[in-house]
Amino acid sequence: MLDPKHVETLKEIVGKENVYSDKAHRIAYSYDATRTRFEPDAVVFPRNEEDVSRILVYCNHHGIVITPRGAGSGFTGGALPTNGGITLAMEKHMNRILEIDMENMVAVVQPGVVNMDLQRAVEELRLFYPPDPASEEYSTLGGNVSENAGGMRAAKYGITKDYVMALRAVRPNGDIIRAGKRTIKDVAGYNIAGILIASEGTLAVITEITVKLLPKPKFRKAYMGIFPSVDNAMNAVFRSLSGGANPVAMEFMDALVVQALKEKLGIELPEDAGALLIGDVDGNVIEEVDFQLEILEKSFKENGAQDFVIAHTDKERDTLWYARRNASPSITVFGSKKLNEDISVPRSMLPEALKRIYEIGERYNFKVPCFGHAGDGNIHVNVMVDGSDEKQLEEGHKAIEEIFELVVDMGGTLSGEHGIGTSKAPFMNIAFNEAELSLFKDIKHAFDPNNILNPGKMGLPGV
Amino acid sequence: MLDPKHVETLKEIVGKENVYSDKAHRIAYSYDATRTRFEPDAVVFPRNEEDVSRILVYCNHHGIVITPRGAGSGFTGGALPTNGGITLAMEKHMNRILEIDMENMVAVVQPGVVNMDLQRAVEELRLFYPPDPASEEYSTLGGNVSENAGGMRAAKYGITKDYVMALRAVRPNGDIIRAGKRTIKDVAGYNIAGILIASEGTLAVITEITVKLLPKPKFRKAYMGIFPSVDNAMNAVFRSLSGGANPVAMEFMDALVVQALKEKLGIELPEDAGALLIGDVDGNVIEEVDFQLEILEKSFKENGAQDFVIAHTDKERDTLWYARRNASPSITVFGSKKLNEDISVPRSMLPEALKRIYEIGERYNFKVPCFGHAGDGNIHVNVMVDGSDEKQLEEGHKAIEEIFELVVDMGGTLSGEHGIGTSKAPFMNIAFNEAELSLFKDIKHAFDPNNILNPGKMGLPGV
Repeated sequence: MLDPKHVETLKEIVGKENVYSDKAHRIAYSYDATRTRFEPDAVVFPRNEEDVSRILVYCNHHGIVITPRGAGSGFTGGALPTNGGITLAMEKHMNRILEIDMENMVAVVQPGVVNMDLQRAVEELRLFYPPDPASEEYSTLGGNVSENAGGMRAAKYGITKDYVMALRAVRPNGDIIRAGKRTIKDVAGYNIAGILIASEGTLAVITEITVKLLPKPKFRKAYMGIFPSVDNAMNAVFRSLSGGANPVAMEFMDALVVQALKEKLGIELPEDAGALLIGDVDGNVIEEVDFQLEILEKSFKENGAQDFVIAHTDKERDTLWYARRNASPSITVFGSKKLNEDISVPRSMLPEALKRIYEIGERYNFKVPCFGHAGDGNIHVNVMVDGSDEKQLEEGHKAIEEIFELVVDMGGTLSGEHGIGTSKAPFMNIAFNEAELSLFKDIKHAFDPNNILNPGKMGLPGV
Repeated sequence: MLDPKHVETLKEIVGKENVYSDKAHRIAYSYDATRTRFEPDAVVFPRNEEDVSRILVYCNHHGIVITPRGAGSGFTGGALPTNGGITLAMEKHMNRILEIDMENMVAVVQPGVVNMDLQRAVEELRLFYPPDPASEEYSTLGGNVSENAGGMRAAKYGITKDYVMALRAVRPNGDIIRAGKRTIKDVAGYNIAGILIASEGTLAVITEITVKLLPKPKFRKAYMGIFPSVDNAMNAVFRSLSGGANPVAMEFMDALVVQALKEKLGIELPEDAGALLIGDVDGNVIEEVDFQLEILEKSFKENGAQDFVIAHTDKERDTLWYARRNASPSITVFGSKKLNEDISVPRSMLPEALKRIYEIGERYNFKVPCFGHAGDGNIHVNVMVDGSDEKQLEEGHKAIEEIFELVVDMGGTLSGEHGIGTSKAPFMNIAFNEAELSLFKDIKHAFDPNNILNPGKMGLPGV
């Protein structure tokens, strides 16, 4: 527990209305999307960068652990205060879009801005912020940067790191760091923004984010391919992409997801549909959109697609996407708890990876419905277990570990977009060798020698 | 001087045919594009990653300084062995394209591969590696990554860091580090590749590079706009881009460059041409190319363009680009030595930045022809002096310092693509505050505690 004198000092720093150590606040800030709970000793709402700096100086001096937090929507525990201490919650005051600079096509935001609020604000100006994690309606840009959030549009447009031009951040010693510029090119000094992205709040507290915007493409159409098998669909994915297609998104659903969509939502799909690919293509001219659709149709049909559907209107598009949007909620028909991992492999390995993941599932006797961002190789693998059965949970975690070993063996990664946090920390030694883990520790130590920022995450030492 | 016993040991490690300490080799590896000379004590040609690791272990133990080197084509001294020691030259053995993976659209290369060799190899397969520094015919990928090289196509396609998916590198302690994956999404562990990019060989020795490739666009046309003044051209740049244009390149030449092109090469241009913009647009369909040209023509004419020329064929394109390609060699008509700095500002600041740069030139009585990558805000500013006149050189450097102060004040950077190295090291304290410089030192120390890798570069401590 935090000494009450620290709470008092923190109240002096940020005002008493911005520091809470009561049970209600501690519970309210104890969770994230992992549904695991760890209560912070206090919740602090900094009003600005100066507050953050002063809080860090104080906590660094007194060895008080800090967990920065956006919306708490992460899937791997990055925002969980596993060591107690202070949760530094950015959503209350540091939640403003500071500037949308149309001339240079950049936006400057505070870390607590919700992703979709930024998307909507720039789209009103005919600009476009592509990163669209599934949590876009509530996750914050600070969290997006800290986890290097992906999303559906990554196949064409890349991920959060491809849009961060500059950051402001505070080191544990209170130093305010400016990293990057509002310029496309900047090669002066180390790429500090580059290392802060995906660092899960373990190196510095991000206080301001400058992102690149694009002109909003004028045309968009959706497509759906229905395949007899996962293998057909997966081959169609990488053959269309290597054949020159550049779809905005290419989302995959396997036979179990198709079954769940039918059972739970009554979605009408062909009897023998073994896998779906759904996505968007876009362009400044309609001919570009049609060019993309032609390549996709050709590649899909050459790889066994039974049907290729194009949605020409927004309404038709909504119908196609309805299936994909409900993939995650529908698969609960196979078990009360899903052990959801977002593995990523080189796209050409997708057919083999899926085949072997299903084999692991069969061996453990679990259903493993898979769906996700096939266009960028990032698949959400869901080991479905009875959450009330301890034995099943344990077996499920063993299956997950085998899946990680398989994925890393195939040149893939433990996490495409969810991060490591606490959930995947036990598997870091599958993906990284001693030398690499040792480098991570050295970097952590360089930024945060007293280990006060989000200790114990990413497989790094706890307190 | 290096103790001869060290030379002997290095010969044992990599073979005697790969270690040279004779005068001829030391002179041959003493220069780069800055035309400054520092002789290494020995030149070592590692055969592979294991060699690099064993050399680093040995040198780290004995405190022998190492300067990694690609083609030595850098403009800021990154590859100069300013502290003697060993030059680790990658171009002799570690110069192979290891793989072009068409299915995943990535290439894997050793650091000594020449940029253009990679471009040509992938284009034969209808793929595309966009980063195109002006040194593309001789600079190496290792150097490109270490300096985060830009180029003409950055306006649309970004810079080297936007294409690096994974690196292998060796730390000074000999540890071999794998950073990144052959996947679009990968958020496991710190973004080590991100911090190694642009680190100028000061943190680790890069031994393998995996880059993302794109499908090669099918259509390309070039355009040229002729403007009465720099101000008109600069306004046209950011107005076309914020108006939705996404040209591959948008290269700028000012009135002095136009004058030099006429005088030195006899290129025919209108009498009153005060600035040129030359570039390419591309697309998968011709309609996209025409869409881009329409926006450009409209924006150019609204901003005072006297003429807008489209090159429809490759031959016509070569004619337009001839002017841009000869901008750099032609400006020697204004002085025997150019103090060439590659500043970058947010695009909307270009008109004001250029105006004030010319004012600085006038105050010092130097011609300052400017040209470069206006589409991404990166301009090559050339203070022309008589290289044999010490006084002029000194004054020229003062003018450069004023230009840097101005640029940083406008939100720009000391270097858009050339790096800091030794040339710009004295100006680091203009761009960065104590806290930021201190963080750079801490990161350097975390990777290289004995300061053996390229010490004294980027404003970091020497030996």
